[in-house]
Amino acid sequence: MRAFRLGIRAPSLAVLAVVAQAGLALAAEDPLPSWNNGETKAAIVDFVSAVTSEGGADYVPPDDRIATFDNDGTLWSEQPMYVQLAFALDRVKEMAPAHPEWKEAEPYKSVLSGDMKALAAVGQKGLLQIIAATHGGMPSEAFTQIAADWIATAKHPVSGKPYTEMIYAPMLELIDYLKANDFKVFIVSGGGVEFMRPWTEKTYGIPPENVVGSSIKTKYDVVEGTPRIVRQMEIDFIDDGPGKPVGIQKFIGKQPIAAFGNSDGDFQMLEWTTAGAGRRLGMIVHHDDAEREVAYDRKSHFGHLDKALDAAPEKGWHLISMKDDWSRIFPD
Amino acid sequence: MRAFRLGIRAPSLAVLAVVAQAGLALAAEDPLPSWNNGETKAAIVDFVSAVTSEGGADYVPPDDRIATFDNDGTLWSEQPMYVQLAFALDRVKEMAPAHPEWKEAEPYKSVLSGDMKALAAVGQKGLLQIIAATHGGMPSEAFTQIAADWIATAKHPVSGKPYTEMIYAPMLELIDYLKANDFKVFIVSGGGVEFMRPWTEKTYGIPPENVVGSSIKTKYDVVEGTPRIVRQMEIDFIDDGPGKPVGIQKFIGKQPIAAFGNSDGDFQMLEWTTAGAGRRLGMIVHHDDAEREVAYDRKSHFGHLDKALDAAPEKGWHLISMKDDWSRIFPD
Repeated sequence: MRAFRLGIRAPSLAVLAVVAQAGLALAAEDPLPSWNNGETKAAIVDFVSAVTSEGGADYVPPDDRIATFDNDGTLWSEQPMYVQLAFALDRVKEMAPAHPEWKEAEPYKSVLSGDMKALAAVGQKGLLQIIAATHGGMPSEAFTQIAADWIATAKHPVSGKPYTEMIYAPMLELIDYLKANDFKVFIVSGGGVEFMRPWTEKTYGIPPENVVGSSIKTKYDVVEGTPRIVRQMEIDFIDDGPGKPVGIQKFIGKQPIAAFGNSDGDFQMLEWTTAGAGRRLGMIVHHDDAEREVAYDRKSHFGHLDKALDAAPEKGWHLISMKDDWSRIFPD
Repeated sequence: MRAFRLGIRAPSLAVLAVVAQAGLALAAEDPLPSWNNGETKAAIVDFVSAVTSEGGADYVPPDDRIATFDNDGTLWSEQPMYVQLAFALDRVKEMAPAHPEWKEAEPYKSVLSGDMKALAAVGQKGLLQIIAATHGGMPSEAFTQIAADWIATAKHPVSGKPYTEMIYAPMLELIDYLKANDFKVFIVSGGGVEFMRPWTEKTYGIPPENVVGSSIKTKYDVVEGTPRIVRQMEIDFIDDGPGKPVGIQKFIGKQPIAAFGNSDGDFQMLEWTTAGAGRRLGMIVHHDDAEREVAYDRKSHFGHLDKALDAAPEKGWHLISMKDDWSRIFPD
């Protein structure tokens, strides 16, 4: 028996080694390891396989493989408030000594007194006023530096982690997977384009020129021989809702074949993308994981998801369940 | 002597073959064969070599190698009039039957009667009116088709060639040379972005998303279930003069390290580009070849070059003499 045992033990080890290697190879080949196997992951892989299969009915040449991603709530956390709003409120506090009149004037008064309820009441007009005052009136270069410095040190109020670590690992994998399949990947966000551009390359691997967002008016000016782009104190373009397809057409000039969002602000981007001819993919990140992140949709102020949630089945948009579809939320 | 002759003839042939091969190899290696050897060509090659030499004092990482090119007069011919103006005039004639009132109303009246002198007198306001009327009031998709169809059939009034063949071969080589050196190459033109995007990839190898230009206001609209981007009849943004650096910052989000233009409309783009820190390159295509193209600068309506011509020496901008620096103008 000993000889027999040895006889089978040797090949067994070899078989095990082969199986182990194959297992490793399989694991290395899964481009979406943080996605649980299921309908959602299969829908992504099927779509990419279909549009990249040369000679297939759904083939799309690389030049037309445009994919657009919302940012807040789609690529990173937008709770308990939009990151850029936290930035703006910090800016109000920092700028307040030079603006003594802010102590008595809304919307600044509520920011400085920390009265979030009163702040909520200032509405979109008040928020845009805060954005203009804190984001405008300086050269683009200076603003870029301020935004870069802030994002490098600011911490998420709940997790205590840098905001750039409050990003969704499965979505990073998805971006890389699409890029590996010759997609051109863009961020299309309601957030300010110059707020995002300083860190999107490092955080998501998406370069500044592939970021579409809201913008403030700017002006070219030469001061003492030094030319500058100067940010005015007036909103230029809001890249949200119907502004998203408008922004995509303006900046990219092509209808995407895949779009990813998480709120009603992404409705028109998803609608326009999936209405195009040929194979299309529209997906909504559904925040249904109260344990690992925050569960919210119809009743949330940030990332309000209602109309798009109702429309999803009829429009063929896939819901990504953070709870069921993702084996992890944040990078380790 | 016969043996001697044969004796030297054999090695001579071998030497000739080696020389011929080396010559071929050299020719194949010159990335700018339509540029005559001289200061201008050397300035380009020196610049590219400096910013791509890892470890060198002037090294620029690929992500920051942004190069911008004006289009009219820099990449293709703008005489006897801007190509897009020829397009607009053709559109007026085509649309006239549906607009009987145009027969009596300027600026259309002069277009329809072919009175170019009267047309010149309508000024920028009249021209923008023509642009809005002929370029707006339809979905982007429809306009793209109209522009693509026109460019495929329209002919240059002097050469009789398609406009897309009235492009400058040396500049195509320059674009390819920069791309081969990991530059990100953009068109930044006063022309309409949606007029250019249908053909820039095929003509210059520059994809739609790398085209920055003037734009008309657009709106997202869903008609009978079909979503569309609809072009309004109002100008949104003029990407010319000080608008060029503004457009670059808005669309690309980075200061270029190299910029190429040919007129005063490129002054600020060149100024902003070459004012940046580190090694920079600014170049002006000077139309000084009356024989092979058209000679014009300070007195021309199209591609007016005056202020930038005076500023060039002080600003360190290189003039590209079409006559002396280019061995050919158009592709064969």
